[in-house]
Amino acid sequence: MVEDTKQFYRIAIVGGTGKEGKGLAYRWVLAGHEVIIGSRQYQKAQRAVAIVNELFDEESDLLKGMENKDAVEACDIAVITVPYAAHRPTLESLKDVLDGKIVVDVVVPIVPPKVTKVQMPPEGSVAQEAQAILGDNCNVVDAFQNISHERLLAEGDVDCDVLVAGKGKAARQIVLGLVKDTGLKGWDAGQIENCVVVEGLTSVLIGLNIQHHVHASGIRITGILNQV
Amino acid sequence: MVEDTKQFYRIAIVGGTGKEGKGLAYRWVLAGHEVIIGSRQYQKAQRAVAIVNELFDEESDLLKGMENKDAVEACDIAVITVPYAAHRPTLESLKDVLDGKIVVDVVVPIVPPKVTKVQMPPEGSVAQEAQAILGDNCNVVDAFQNISHERLLAEGDVDCDVLVAGKGKAARQIVLGLVKDTGLKGWDAGQIENCVVVEGLTSVLIGLNIQHHVHASGIRITGILNQV
Repeated sequence: MVEDTKQFYRIAIVGGTGKEGKGLAYRWVLAGHEVIIGSRQYQKAQRAVAIVNELFDEESDLLKGMENKDAVEACDIAVITVPYAAHRPTLESLKDVLDGKIVVDVVVPIVPPKVTKVQMPPEGSVAQEAQAILGDNCNVVDAFQNISHERLLAEGDVDCDVLVAGKGKAARQIVLGLVKDTGLKGWDAGQIENCVVVEGLTSVLIGLNIQHHVHASGIRITGILNQV
Repeated sequence: MVEDTKQFYRIAIVGGTGKEGKGLAYRWVLAGHEVIIGSRQYQKAQRAVAIVNELFDEESDLLKGMENKDAVEACDIAVITVPYAAHRPTLESLKDVLDGKIVVDVVVPIVPPKVTKVQMPPEGSVAQEAQAILGDNCNVVDAFQNISHERLLAEGDVDCDVLVAGKGKAARQIVLGLVKDTGLKGWDAGQIENCVVVEGLTSVLIGLNIQHHVHASGIRITGILNQV
């Protein structure tokens, strides 16, 4: 028999009180990971934990709430789900505690009012901005940019694949495992220079949502058999 | 009864002797458009015409071969299918005859040996490079970057949607009609700043092809009902 070598992580979700953070927390706790919802305010983190706990039969020991800095200090892997405007200041304030970790960046550079226009920061993408702030000792990896986060906060299929791009193939493999644990299909979209595609696709999909009066257009990768 | 108001165009395919050009020519002639395969050499254009004509029961009056410049002069819509290295010189040499036309750019900025890494020209994308060369009087629109062109040269389904991005909504609508006429499903991916996503996705898909030992990974848009 093959041993189950599944790896469990302690995941901090920075700015995790929004719909993205709560949805990811719900799915990862279901998969057996420890999840710490982080917020600038301890009480907000606790409220988000209470909301997610309502989705379980009983309160989960795997789910905690902390201030962002404490959450990151306690974690193996940090997930960034703050609004774009807070991206740079949040990373600058957490740089020391993020050192050496895998940083999953979920942020998209949506700049109102032109939400359907691809607009990247000078570094080339949000992920490259994060990598520049945090330095080479971190591995910044994009994921979950293109999915409907409301749908994560319930059981059932989300009809969208997840593109995973960022620094380091080993880091991308770990993040692909975390994607799988949410019930979604992830694909290795390559090195950090490819994050412009992962993030920019969100603007394209927002445009399609508006044109077609839907809320959750997405993408699927085709032409590859034996999809796991 | 509703009149059929289908519009037919005279389409020049610049550098159309490769697999992309012949595949598109075949499908557009089938749909009733006039197609001129362009090449730097008249004889090469004639040979490509002969190859495409073999796919029909009899030689088509709708298909011609010319030198690139003559092809563009005669056309309503020009399609650019040259290799990336020839993109800038080709457009510079055809600038005068392209003036005022819709230019469908099929070129992807693949820079060997790093074919899986997104690498854009300084303008931001190939389409924006073309727009800068040709000036505001043209409408440059990206399409067909992500499909397997071999599959166009035969009947049958191509399991990949086409993202259409570029200057001007009306121009994109015309190109979406041309996509439909190839038997593929196109989506309006927005303004020319979004071409970085359309073109960059090709590097992501090449990476997936290599990882999964396939030749034609692609994408489908999900989450939109009543797909035409």
